[in-house]
Amino acid sequence: MVPLGGLGEFGMNMMALRYGEDILAIDAGLMFPETELLGVDVVIPDITYLKQNRGVRALLLTHAHEDHIGAVPYVLPDLNCPVYGTRFTLALVRKKLEEHGLLEKADLREISPGMTVTLGPFEVEFVHVTHSTIECVALAIRTPLGIVIHTGDFKVDPTPVDGQSFDLHRFARYGQEGVLALFADSTNAERPGYTPSERAVRPRLEELFRAAPKRVVISCFSSSVHRIQQVIDIATEQGRKVAFIGRSMGDNVEIAHSLNKLHIPDGSVVRPQDIKAFDPRRIVILASGSQAEPMSALSRIAVDNHRLLELQENDTVILSARIIPGNEKAISRMIDHLFRRRVLVYYESGRSAPIHVSGHASQEEMKLLLNLVRPKYFVPIHGEYRQLFQHASLARQVGSVSGEILMVESGQPIEFTPDGAFRREPVQVGRVFVDSGSLEEIEEVVIRDRRHLAEDGVVVPIIAINKHSGKIEASPEIVTRGFLPMDDGQELLALARNVVLKTMEQSNPEEKSDWSVIKEKIRVDLKKFLNKKTSKRPLILPVILEV
Amino acid sequence: MVPLGGLGEFGMNMMALRYGEDILAIDAGLMFPETELLGVDVVIPDITYLKQNRGVRALLLTHAHEDHIGAVPYVLPDLNCPVYGTRFTLALVRKKLEEHGLLEKADLREISPGMTVTLGPFEVEFVHVTHSTIECVALAIRTPLGIVIHTGDFKVDPTPVDGQSFDLHRFARYGQEGVLALFADSTNAERPGYTPSERAVRPRLEELFRAAPKRVVISCFSSSVHRIQQVIDIATEQGRKVAFIGRSMGDNVEIAHSLNKLHIPDGSVVRPQDIKAFDPRRIVILASGSQAEPMSALSRIAVDNHRLLELQENDTVILSARIIPGNEKAISRMIDHLFRRRVLVYYESGRSAPIHVSGHASQEEMKLLLNLVRPKYFVPIHGEYRQLFQHASLARQVGSVSGEILMVESGQPIEFTPDGAFRREPVQVGRVFVDSGSLEEIEEVVIRDRRHLAEDGVVVPIIAINKHSGKIEASPEIVTRGFLPMDDGQELLALARNVVLKTMEQSNPEEKSDWSVIKEKIRVDLKKFLNKKTSKRPLILPVILEV
Repeated sequence: MVPLGGLGEFGMNMMALRYGEDILAIDAGLMFPETELLGVDVVIPDITYLKQNRGVRALLLTHAHEDHIGAVPYVLPDLNCPVYGTRFTLALVRKKLEEHGLLEKADLREISPGMTVTLGPFEVEFVHVTHSTIECVALAIRTPLGIVIHTGDFKVDPTPVDGQSFDLHRFARYGQEGVLALFADSTNAERPGYTPSERAVRPRLEELFRAAPKRVVISCFSSSVHRIQQVIDIATEQGRKVAFIGRSMGDNVEIAHSLNKLHIPDGSVVRPQDIKAFDPRRIVILASGSQAEPMSALSRIAVDNHRLLELQENDTVILSARIIPGNEKAISRMIDHLFRRRVLVYYESGRSAPIHVSGHASQEEMKLLLNLVRPKYFVPIHGEYRQLFQHASLARQVGSVSGEILMVESGQPIEFTPDGAFRREPVQVGRVFVDSGSLEEIEEVVIRDRRHLAEDGVVVPIIAINKHSGKIEASPEIVTRGFLPMDDGQELLALARNVVLKTMEQSNPEEKSDWSVIKEKIRVDLKKFLNKKTSKRPLILPVILEV
Repeated sequence: MVPLGGLGEFGMNMMALRYGEDILAIDAGLMFPETELLGVDVVIPDITYLKQNRGVRALLLTHAHEDHIGAVPYVLPDLNCPVYGTRFTLALVRKKLEEHGLLEKADLREISPGMTVTLGPFEVEFVHVTHSTIECVALAIRTPLGIVIHTGDFKVDPTPVDGQSFDLHRFARYGQEGVLALFADSTNAERPGYTPSERAVRPRLEELFRAAPKRVVISCFSSSVHRIQQVIDIATEQGRKVAFIGRSMGDNVEIAHSLNKLHIPDGSVVRPQDIKAFDPRRIVILASGSQAEPMSALSRIAVDNHRLLELQENDTVILSARIIPGNEKAISRMIDHLFRRRVLVYYESGRSAPIHVSGHASQEEMKLLLNLVRPKYFVPIHGEYRQLFQHASLARQVGSVSGEILMVESGQPIEFTPDGAFRREPVQVGRVFVDSGSLEEIEEVVIRDRRHLAEDGVVVPIIAINKHSGKIEASPEIVTRGFLPMDDGQELLALARNVVLKTMEQSNPEEKSDWSVIKEKIRVDLKKFLNKKTSKRPLILPVILEV
């Protein structure tokens, strides 16, 4: 067992399971970059280990979240193996591969819960689990040494919206048979009690929809199909139609709908271009951007810079999502902007009935799973160090692990043998940075880690903005290194300065005062320009000075 | 009434109160810079308005927190007026002014709660309030138009540790007499109920101290004198001595002790240099760094890079402080490092008895104050927009404001006249960036906003680190603009590259993997070097590429 990402760090989940020369890769997720990672779009796990060890039989995907499938297009060309996943998971993967021009070569194999496939020495059963998206599976892998269970992400939802239960019986059966090792999701290991059912958000949403005097705008993760279903159901009951704004929301709804995973009554959808003219008391708008991502639908709406929707006083905005760590400030700024527009804003405060519930198991569910599976070895996965640690402590309390509880971080392999479980020499892992153009222009995707970027150099546009007038104080400076020789470059840089100026002119004052937005806009525009002129893709690091 | 900072933004609290030509300035706080503000140490309010309007009679300080007094050394030379504050507040201000070489010229005037001073047309009474530091006052200002009350920061603590109560009677008296306008702290306007008393942390701390098998390290804001007092009391009762680590903790304890505001039994203090050798079961260490500031005592201890303290397995670390918005990721990284050292870590989870309580009033206390004061006009202050908004909504619910509730943000003046309250033309406000060298080398403080920085140029050191080996992949690049002519600069830049290399060599792997730390170290060292060689102080923006 070789953890390649997601152990001792948040996101970027990936693991290798090896027996002899045969390897199963499990998930290939991304990590969202921190603000410190200027100029980086996507962070993926280093798969040097898999490249060095040919013999990857398959890539198994547990579910369709970005931190589990986001790196597939970047790693698949190197793995060159079939990809297994449920229909919904593969539909999202297919879309990604298509955008990267990789779909034709890909060998995607659809599975469904309960199925078993044989891959070299491994026999893998896909076991249905509940989580915040649909068609999620755990993996029960029969190896020559014993059975290994990988939970993927899960919660034990006793009343899932689609009636598809967490498959307690399969876990119980494996527990009875005897499990060598359990690898289980630790995300919520710090939370006591049970995670409420997805249905728990319904009463509060009903109440807020009913109380809304005008439009309702609600934002959730676009993969939260059950949440979206509940919103559609409540809207329909209350005589409101639904509209969808934002690329990821539109895509996911379309996919889920085409797979019959989302039930949208006929005639209940308002096209995005018709939102503006539609009766505000009869519409609910589902928008992407719950994390206040700089270019997302909701962040644009909040600063009144979205062509399809202009918020009015007493419109209602509901944030039905958790705050991903690192996004606190951006989300708080977005909420302030909404308040300034005299919008009725609702967000999770922990003080009334929930408008969001987690998709991850809390401590009591973790204990239940440990008692069902009662493995010989237990390795907490998916979590920062303290979460892995708490999960390990829980397992110690429960006492159902007959052998050893192993705390490991990404890169630390464990070998299971008949004589025991042993820590082996660490393998190379790490974060690889991908510069994908921007989330908005994925047609130009180029994969490159920072080592390659050195070839094209660095461009640092420096812009001095007057905080209150929003005006640029002086012509933007552009500093470069390793990009173009100084002499050839002067004219180009003069043009580049104009590009920056133009981007600034086309932004409204609220965008200008939100640096993450303005930096992203400058980066995207400048990159397009420089690539067109030079065919190079330097690293672009905008610096804004407020004066 | 002219809000100059802290309304619609977090921190940087400052206000001007004007009658005719006479102005009172209230507080002069700083805002901690966001990570996006690379290379900036301190953010202070723009006081152009005060510079344009001579006639500032006094600067009145409500209490000793950085977001209320941190900008004093930067604005005082321009204001050139006496400064009023309580003994403890002025002691901290004195220390700051001394470090800036401004103490001799400063006119500091000590007041105590209950005192009244006349300043031109204003008669100011200082009214005692409870908060998370000591000697805090609200201001009751008698003007020719009526009485204006500014609460400063407050909570209504019914059982303060030092027995000094919130002066309900003075507020009641003013309420009876009739108050023109109330300006009140909105920080916790989103929290229902009452904020628990400072004493509420005692049971849990007692329990954790008693349970600690070895050392106890506890971190809180160094201005939380009551918290520190309780820690000393509990330690003494349980037969542990106390030690203090970190500059701000040391300074504040010394000041509070010298003013008889902190009672430390004789013989109960362990000197920092004796900590290592001291019996772990008989010591409690109070350390600064609860916000995981890059160079602070606790962040260094967490990565085992503090000369005075090396944590051992089963030492206890308690974080007895809130998380200031924006610091979530840094604190979470620090906690993970502590877990990796097998330390018993306790932090606020909201699930057991508190180990930290807020210093700000919750909704019920806000209602109480509104009912006591029942002003004609009410202006929520100290908060981001949504907090001001919630505070205004609360006031509307309570119904004790006889005139108008006014929502304003920094820069939006209100004129109170016998005919009503009117919004006037906005004044220039904003964030001014101060590059103070670093928190560690304040003897070299230079004030400059970014406009001035343009004179000395920009230096961008670019370092490529291998994430796992922690090694530098290539010689660091240094890009500059407007700093030195290219020809003269080559030799200097070669030396500068060596400085960066040396800084890297002297850092341990955990520091190298924490970019905020390594960037700060490079910035500080490079700045010292460049200043020594050129007498210039360019803006230094380290960029780290992980490869």
